[in-house]
Amino acid sequence: MLKPKKPHQSEVTMTEMVLPNDTNTLNNLMGGRLLHWMDICAAISAQKHSNRIVVTASVDNVSFTEPIRLGNIVTMRAKVTRAFNSSMEVFLEVWAEDIPAGQRVSTNRAFYTFVAETDEESELYLSALRRRQLRLVLAGRMNAAEATELKALFKV
Amino acid sequence: MLKPKKPHQSEVTMTEMVLPNDTNTLNNLMGGRLLHWMDICAAISAQKHSNRIVVTASVDNVSFTEPIRLGNIVTMRAKVTRAFNSSMEVFLEVWAEDIPAGQRVSTNRAFYTFVAETDEESELYLSALRRRQLRLVLAGRMNAAEATELKALFKV
Amino acid sequence: MLKPKKPHQSEVTMTEMVLPNDTNTLNNLMGGRLLHWMDICAAISAQKHSNRIVVTASVDNVSFTEPIRLGNIVTMRAKVTRAFNSSMEVFLEVWAEDIPAGQRVSTNRAFYTFVAETDEESELYLSALRRRQLRLVLAGRMNAAEATELKALFKV
Amino acid sequence: MLKPKKPHQSEVTMTEMVLPNDTNTLNNLMGGRLLHWMDICAAISAQKHSNRIVVTASVDNVSFTEPIRLGNIVTMRAKVTRAFNSSMEVFLEVWAEDIPAGQRVSTNRAFYTFVAETDEESELYLSALRRRQLRLVLAGRMNAAEATELKALFKV
Amino acid sequence: MLKPKKPHQSEVTMTEMVLPNDTNTLNNLMGGRLLHWMDICAAISAQKHSNRIVVTASVDNVSFTEPIRLGNIVTMRAKVTRAFNSSMEVFLEVWAEDIPAGQRVSTNRAFYTFVAETDEESELYLSALRRRQLRLVLAGRMNAAEATELKALFKV
Amino acid sequence: MLKPKKPHQSEVTMTEMVLPNDTNTLNNLMGGRLLHWMDICAAISAQKHSNRIVVTASVDNVSFTEPIRLGNIVTMRAKVTRAFNSSMEVFLEVWAEDIPAGQRVSTNRAFYTFVAETDEESELYLSALRRRQLRLVLAGRMNAAEATELKALFKV
Repeated sequence: MLKPKKPHQSEVTMTEMVLPNDTNTLNNLMGGRLLHWMDICAAISAQKHSNRIVVTASVDNVSFTEPIRLGNIVTMRAKVTRAFNSSMEVFLEVWAEDIPAGQRVSTNRAFYTFVAETDEESELYLSALRRRQLRLVLAGRMNAAEATELKALFKV
Repeated sequence: MLKPKKPHQSEVTMTEMVLPNDTNTLNNLMGGRLLHWMDICAAISAQKHSNRIVVTASVDNVSFTEPIRLGNIVTMRAKVTRAFNSSMEVFLEVWAEDIPAGQRVSTNRAFYTFVAETDEESELYLSALRRRQLRLVLAGRMNAAEATELKALFKV
Repeated sequence: MLKPKKPHQSEVTMTEMVLPNDTNTLNNLMGGRLLHWMDICAAISAQKHSNRIVVTASVDNVSFTEPIRLGNIVTMRAKVTRAFNSSMEVFLEVWAEDIPAGQRVSTNRAFYTFVAETDEESELYLSALRRRQLRLVLAGRMNAAEATELKALFKV
Repeated sequence: MLKPKKPHQSEVTMTEMVLPNDTNTLNNLMGGRLLHWMDICAAISAQKHSNRIVVTASVDNVSFTEPIRLGNIVTMRAKVTRAFNSSMEVFLEVWAEDIPAGQRVSTNRAFYTFVAETDEESELYLSALRRRQLRLVLAGRMNAAEATELKALFKV
Repeated sequence: MLKPKKPHQSEVTMTEMVLPNDTNTLNNLMGGRLLHWMDICAAISAQKHSNRIVVTASVDNVSFTEPIRLGNIVTMRAKVTRAFNSSMEVFLEVWAEDIPAGQRVSTNRAFYTFVAETDEESELYLSALRRRQLRLVLAGRMNAAEATELKALFKV
Repeated sequence: MLKPKKPHQSEVTMTEMVLPNDTNTLNNLMGGRLLHWMDICAAISAQKHSNRIVVTASVDNVSFTEPIRLGNIVTMRAKVTRAFNSSMEVFLEVWAEDIPAGQRVSTNRAFYTFVAETDEESELYLSALRRRQLRLVLAGRMNAAEATELKALFKV
């Protein structure tokens, strides 16, 4: 009964402040840290589109032309641009802002592909139910007799 | 010559994924981690409004009524609601989303107060120039003779 | 058979060194990082008082009047000041110390409220037993026949 | 059927870049951070030798004679030097490199002892199978009827 | 004019909660993480004794006999036990507490040696003044004409 | 007088253990975290080749075909494959190892391009000298009269 959300519902905005550990000894943001942030932002977008947990399948060529400095604010915006049976293409843009200097520049664009972890949504939903039941039963908050989906698995 | 931005320009959206180290042994997001994220989001909003570096002056009472779970997506939205000479009030809202379950709930609201670090914007701007000149001179990328603002300080 | 500890047994001292990633570009400790540390310290105090896992219910207004600098040592002291059926009030004080300068200042005070996760302590204790049994059984270190509490749940 | 690997197969090389949060206020790598990296490198070596999860049993006296600076590259090399029934001795060497200055110095040497978590390797292997089956079953990706090792534990 | 503090003034208590990233795949605290915490606690103690920034010179043999688990509370207590011209011996004890289970065990003891960074305390104090002046001058908050210690260095 | 190192001298091996915070809720390593590690490994290789600080210019398409799991050991190997005036191409391979299961698989390959920060190596070396002199002077460890390179900048 869960349906994929409409395109604009997959839009995700993520904001990060560049801290010392994100930079090299010249105080520039390391490329790998930015790729890490971009991947999380794009993955959340693909999750929102599919209502599933997703894994990164690939990222296209990414170029780093503008240096991003310590203290800058990095803004990322991602949205699903194409969807197939179980995979999605996500387009993502990045801006960096030096707020005291009043400067904001576009720094990166990239396409990611994500794959939803299972083919059958209802199955995922049921397994979530079962996991929750196991947790509740183990925590003593649910009577095992009521954990019907869970018990079914063990054919008890 | 830098002017404070208009109210809607101070709006900041920040998105975080709840990772294992953000949670207690019951897999719930720890309150302190959320307060940390909220503070960064609100600070960026105050920075955008004032074009200055800001420091947190206070945070109002915050209540935690909805548990936020491992794997949830946390979205925060902040904007400046009132501004005085050097201090700003920021209002911030938080939502938590369990994407595979298709659930999104409002979890927190808070008011923060921030103070801009200096009273005179032009002074801040000049000191940034001086710092940049010192870095360039020390890095051998600028001739010391050209670092006029910097040298002025030492009355050389 | 587990009894709540006496008030002085809930006292917790936590010490942190302010590292680069904890500070803004002016080298001052960010307010949100301090709130994060304060929450952990207060939560441990509430845990010690109740012998249970706790979650943050609320934090009162917190003001930041003294700047805390990179390299400073932050000391927090928390203790339970009032306890109700399942909730506790914790009072917490913070000091910052610049050791080479020989300066130590009181910087913050706050009241937190925590809630114990379950009402029945014995239930929590039993569920911990069951979780341990499941781990041991799955790890091959306990014969499943001995995991009586665990098996009871499945009515095997 | 899993056999311990040969000595040279336990050799592990680990490389770390010294970032701001790894250093004290004088920009020198903190001793504890280095001990942390050394322990992970040595543990992986012991894991490779025994094909088991290991825990640190002890570390010999470690001296820190050469300062390691912010931005330096730290290289560690570990290998198992002696093995007993369930414990292993690991020897580890550390070098620090200031690449722009073209300098590389030997900074530390240490002996660690690790203990494999269980005595019977086959048992560990079986429990891994069981854990995987539980995960798959709970995730709805495996039919419970096929989870023979897992079910055996509950004598269903 | 700064004098070394008395022995009991060097006592430092540090408390940490064992989070997921601190543990191996068996949910036991990794030895290296504990060594990292112990080093910070001992260093703060040596700093308090000497009123100086210190660096780790050595750590004696450390044994790990008691497993520390995910969610445990680790308490460390350090104090200076002997002091020489520029080096100090610090003794440190570690306890681990499983609060819901009501168990607390002594897990480790260790001796560390630290060295103060400079021999002349007054020199350190002056350099801190100079550093502060440089920061203030560069930030435009102090008139360069007043930065007497700083200017003296350049014999302007 | 610093000369670029020979090709085999640019080879760098980096090893990481997959910890909980590196994984999504299905316990698979997140793609962005891997990209972060790969970038650091490749950057160190380019640094070793050029004896300079480098910045990432681009990364080619990267595919993620093999899942990497919590607790796996990730090994990366990078080396410079082509060098131009100020840019270098680095080739990098990644393997993931499940040590208790005795499995090791090749998971990724990628080409990175890095750019050295300055064109004139001698200039970089001199600026490092100047920075060191400034630190020593400010710390009171060097007589300002001896800081010839530094003073030259100010034409004192």
